[in-house]
Amino acid sequence: MTETTTTLTHQTFGEDPQVGVGLMADDARTAARTLAKANRGRKDAALLHIAERIEAQADAIIEANQKDLTRGEQDGTSSALLDRLKLDKTRITGLADALRELAALPDPVGTVVRGQTLANGLRMRQIRVPMGVVGAIYEARPNVTVDIAGIALKSGNAVLLRGGSAALESNKALVGIIRDALSDQKLPVDIVQSVDDYGREGANALMAARGKVDVLIPRGGHGLIQSVVQNAQVPVIETGEGNVHVFVDASAPEKMAVDVVVNAKTHRNSTCNTAETLILHKDAAAGPAVLAALAKAGVALHVDDRAAAMLPEGTEHSAATDEDWGTEYLDAQMAVKVVDSLDEAIEHIERWTTRHTEAIVTNDLANAEAFIASIDAAAVMVNASTRFTDGGQLGLGAEIGISTQKMHARGPMGLEELTTTKWIVQGDGHVRK
Amino acid sequence: MTETTTTLTHQTFGEDPQVGVGLMADDARTAARTLAKANRGRKDAALLHIAERIEAQADAIIEANQKDLTRGEQDGTSSALLDRLKLDKTRITGLADALRELAALPDPVGTVVRGQTLANGLRMRQIRVPMGVVGAIYEARPNVTVDIAGIALKSGNAVLLRGGSAALESNKALVGIIRDALSDQKLPVDIVQSVDDYGREGANALMAARGKVDVLIPRGGHGLIQSVVQNAQVPVIETGEGNVHVFVDASAPEKMAVDVVVNAKTHRNSTCNTAETLILHKDAAAGPAVLAALAKAGVALHVDDRAAAMLPEGTEHSAATDEDWGTEYLDAQMAVKVVDSLDEAIEHIERWTTRHTEAIVTNDLANAEAFIASIDAAAVMVNASTRFTDGGQLGLGAEIGISTQKMHARGPMGLEELTTTKWIVQGDGHVRK
Repeated sequence: MTETTTTLTHQTFGEDPQVGVGLMADDARTAARTLAKANRGRKDAALLHIAERIEAQADAIIEANQKDLTRGEQDGTSSALLDRLKLDKTRITGLADALRELAALPDPVGTVVRGQTLANGLRMRQIRVPMGVVGAIYEARPNVTVDIAGIALKSGNAVLLRGGSAALESNKALVGIIRDALSDQKLPVDIVQSVDDYGREGANALMAARGKVDVLIPRGGHGLIQSVVQNAQVPVIETGEGNVHVFVDASAPEKMAVDVVVNAKTHRNSTCNTAETLILHKDAAAGPAVLAALAKAGVALHVDDRAAAMLPEGTEHSAATDEDWGTEYLDAQMAVKVVDSLDEAIEHIERWTTRHTEAIVTNDLANAEAFIASIDAAAVMVNASTRFTDGGQLGLGAEIGISTQKMHARGPMGLEELTTTKWIVQGDGHVRK
Repeated sequence: MTETTTTLTHQTFGEDPQVGVGLMADDARTAARTLAKANRGRKDAALLHIAERIEAQADAIIEANQKDLTRGEQDGTSSALLDRLKLDKTRITGLADALRELAALPDPVGTVVRGQTLANGLRMRQIRVPMGVVGAIYEARPNVTVDIAGIALKSGNAVLLRGGSAALESNKALVGIIRDALSDQKLPVDIVQSVDDYGREGANALMAARGKVDVLIPRGGHGLIQSVVQNAQVPVIETGEGNVHVFVDASAPEKMAVDVVVNAKTHRNSTCNTAETLILHKDAAAGPAVLAALAKAGVALHVDDRAAAMLPEGTEHSAATDEDWGTEYLDAQMAVKVVDSLDEAIEHIERWTTRHTEAIVTNDLANAEAFIASIDAAAVMVNASTRFTDGGQLGLGAEIGISTQKMHARGPMGLEELTTTKWIVQGDGHVRK
């Protein structure tokens, strides 16, 4: 299957990536126009059918995935990356289950956002409609292929995927199955297409396809996202890093401070909503207990002088530098700073924040309000772990990523963020005076 | 005043536009943090005070404007552009009145967009907050300086203005007055700054200021907008062209068709919501009457063969070409095409649309619904003039422009579109399990 697809894409769309991806985007637009009119029932049926076919063809997927894994091993890929790349029966069931969960979510398309009858009798309403053609650029994680294809389908969009060379065979197998399933369901197969045959040039063509691709979603590490943000002429939704702070105020109850900080740092240390810097008020009675709990949890501490003095006798630590304040460790490490006041904490955060999630632990109402009002971030937590910045946790359903930009979507993005709106204005021959 | 300001900007921020605009953006960020906490009362008081000072200093503004006009005349600027540039007492009163209207509008900041208490007891709400630092790039229209500064202030944003060299003196005078008024009101003067001293390089620096400027709004002609959209690394809200179509269906009542088409074309022919192409169903009884009315209104018609046959005897016309289908005339000209079916009309629109506004005149409910569902545009009109795609007409208040992109804002943009959101999550020591 895979070799045939490679040949066919080039045969159909030609060798020039820019031209080829443009033609694929045109096909995607046509498919999207049909999909935009499909009701929720049809889209959910398709999602469930894709889930079924993915499970039924698990062996073929695993076989294709094995080729990627073998090549990865030969290329000296790290075991962490190989683990991300790997698909087994359990993970394939997970992919199918994610599609089933998607089918159970409400459909944002057709929602009336606002509306009224104007003084002159014009009836107007603003409704949610699909974006149209979405592009996705990501790295070596075949699960993203199914995730994004499912989210695009549910929100009524066609999608052009660039999944990276490391997962080439896995992604081809998955895209093939999804397209077959769409065909079974009498939906246009070009709802889901891959530009991977064009390699890296496929990604560049997607970034340049202004007017043909409505929005581009990069998913992956810092380098990938920055490259897309800097180079794309297509509008991008930036899902970003989290240099997340927790400020423990003077009045913070000890148990609460320990619980929140330890959870924010250690619940899962490689996620963007994981805390990276702890800021302690100099009078925070909870300070030493929090530091002791972090040390006990195996977190390496990078501390300023005053924080060093709060550490339990003999705790290993290193001196914090500006690099520590600016680093998203994504690891069992944490920078610690002691401040004289709430204002100093806010200024430190303003200097180093990536505007993802910032938290305060306090029992002082005025300080909580000042923190909420002063911090410019996608999410502000009061007495809650930063790990709650998550679409699932906040009850928003399937998550495409967490946006750290201010336009269109901020914070966890769900199905709604893949829609735009359309004004519908109805009159009886109304004209402007 | 003007010469001093020129010297001062360079003295303060240095000769390098990139560095200087970066420093100005930092000052804007600091000012914006203060403004974000100002309540509506303070912002409205400032708007009213700016309005008062602008009227009080009308003579100084007119004097500065005269310098721009004189230079424009010497440079051979067209009389249409000179008219746009010109400020007199009446227009200055208009500027002040627009600020007063802005003060009367509700403040989007602080609006709760959605919220709930989760099963685990976490309280979450998503509120509107200002973007932060907004950039504006526009051309030779000093009224935009006051407009954008007022809209930014009301929505809680600081703004960096690049107003173009043709209006240099006028803009300097206006920015000086606005800053003085902000100072009177004990608000940070750096809420409003001009990068005009850096000339064209100031615009380039704004476009490159990713991370320092949150959103860039280009306002002006096709060339300016495309240049910003193509070159900016800062997120852009594209306010675009309207190649607007009106489809007169077979069932369209004659009077309604004549009223809507003539109004859509001739109410004001230089606006983006003005109709440019008329599509007639071959069986539309209203066709000849519509064409006769357009001809009578002085509209030059570019027609296909079948439309030519519907023209009143002796009506001047030319043959429509592909160029006509793709042209936004912004003038008393209209392209006319006859189609066999609704589907053919929709296909023609899909090929040539700029996704701004599209209209149908019909009495066939199924056709109206099909048109609404099939057309991908910011606004779809049924039996109403395309001129209603307008923030004021749709009751949305002050308008920054009409967005033709799908991200963040689509259609008329008001104050709300200059805000973003922030999640506020409050717990009692909540941690993730």
